[in-house]
Amino acid sequence: MRVIRDAAELRAVSQAWHAAGERIALVPTMGYLHEGHLALVARARELAPRVIATIFVNPTQFAPHEDLGRYPRDEAGDIAKLEAAGCDVLFAPSVEVMYPAGFATRIAMSGPAEGLEGTHRPQMFAGVALVCTRLFGMSGADVAVFGEKDWQQVMVVRRVVEDLALPITIETVPTIRAADGLALSSRNAYLDPEARVKAAAMHAALSYAAERLRAGATAAEACGEAEERLREAGFRQVDYVALRSERGFEEMEKLSEPGRVLGAAWLRQVRLIDNVTKSG
Amino acid sequence: MRVIRDAAELRAVSQAWHAAGERIALVPTMGYLHEGHLALVARARELAPRVIATIFVNPTQFAPHEDLGRYPRDEAGDIAKLEAAGCDVLFAPSVEVMYPAGFATRIAMSGPAEGLEGTHRPQMFAGVALVCTRLFGMSGADVAVFGEKDWQQVMVVRRVVEDLALPITIETVPTIRAADGLALSSRNAYLDPEARVKAAAMHAALSYAAERLRAGATAAEACGEAEERLREAGFRQVDYVALRSERGFEEMEKLSEPGRVLGAAWLRQVRLIDNVTKSG
Repeated sequence: MRVIRDAAELRAVSQAWHAAGERIALVPTMGYLHEGHLALVARARELAPRVIATIFVNPTQFAPHEDLGRYPRDEAGDIAKLEAAGCDVLFAPSVEVMYPAGFATRIAMSGPAEGLEGTHRPQMFAGVALVCTRLFGMSGADVAVFGEKDWQQVMVVRRVVEDLALPITIETVPTIRAADGLALSSRNAYLDPEARVKAAAMHAALSYAAERLRAGATAAEACGEAEERLREAGFRQVDYVALRSERGFEEMEKLSEPGRVLGAAWLRQVRLIDNVTKSG
Repeated sequence: MRVIRDAAELRAVSQAWHAAGERIALVPTMGYLHEGHLALVARARELAPRVIATIFVNPTQFAPHEDLGRYPRDEAGDIAKLEAAGCDVLFAPSVEVMYPAGFATRIAMSGPAEGLEGTHRPQMFAGVALVCTRLFGMSGADVAVFGEKDWQQVMVVRRVVEDLALPITIETVPTIRAADGLALSSRNAYLDPEARVKAAAMHAALSYAAERLRAGATAAEACGEAEERLREAGFRQVDYVALRSERGFEEMEKLSEPGRVLGAAWLRQVRLIDNVTKSG
């Protein structure tokens, strides 16, 4: 696997592959890779003969008080994992390569970027839309693969691709979970052993809400009860538990069409997010 | 020439051309075409075997008090001119095709979008960046051709292409002028015969400033004198006359590197803009 840090080198590799008629699949990540990321690489390999993974902890999607500075990193470990997973190129640019002097463009998103994560992390989706748009262009990828754990992010990325008519397709891979249901996440590294045990309550609470919705409960009832369960399990603050439609990412009062239950809550200083489809 | 109004039809045509190995050049316009636009089409034909012109009066780049509602239109005349100029496709979408229900993306530009037009028409370049990015993607064009009359716009479009790593190249064509120097513009249709005569003072004043700069005058002196000449010629308000560097579009106190003199001023209710390179 080739590790590339320079935009011109990435473009040359990508153009050579396209000239040879080879499609390219992209797996954008912030590194500190786990089985969830490797499932994205596996899916990418099914979609295209060439796979580029990226590792970039994007400063524009973090607010000043957030965990940019302490976000976990292990590039050597990540390289070994990507190599073993059959990735062709790792693109790991510096901040200066991604946002060079003179950079002057920002993207603002409404629609699926509003509410939930958009309320609690107001700067995030603008940063995600910008970095993804730029990575799509720099890599020349034909398809990009995202994990469903960050479902609202998937909705935002699909939206910016459609609105800017970007020449790329977005594919998703279901969330990979630990045996107790906890969604794999690089931020799980922040959990001490006791918190790690309690963290399983997130998936349990969202699954419970989904079950109640299927039984006919309103979103207010089902999500309210899930929030209560999170607090009982030791989460100190629940940012939200909410139902959104699968197709248009719209609020629904009941499960009147296929939907997803999304949640975000704080276990001590660690913020966990997750979501489950109507099938739990 | 085929007239297309639908995004899917445009994509199909563009994909078929690319599949046949044919490059595509794009000429984005707001219609009411004149010789300046046709020079862009002629350049496009040199650059690629396939040429798509677009006509779209983009509401997102007009402020509420501006001339969106009365912007001149003549689609039948435009079609005849484009056909004669050897254009392959005219893409003339409705507002609903360009900004369908659910559209949720905005682009904000700093850098070259700041100052001059960006001061006097604060919403314009965000609208230009958005519509160009979307048209580039929808058309799949390999190169787009813009006129140098809107020089700051060219700087903004080049910037968004670089920042979002869009897979397109930007080419420009020098301004086409009437015999008395007036830059051709669809908005010249607003000028009554008396104002049309006075309008020639814009190019004369900017050329005078460029000459003074070449002779060693400061930007403050040269541009101040040009503004005075515009007022003497009957312009009721001068928005700006300014020197910017050719390469980085930066303010300069003197002509210390290749530059452009840009101006905008009002002749009665008509706002004219123009610019000249250091060679006048």
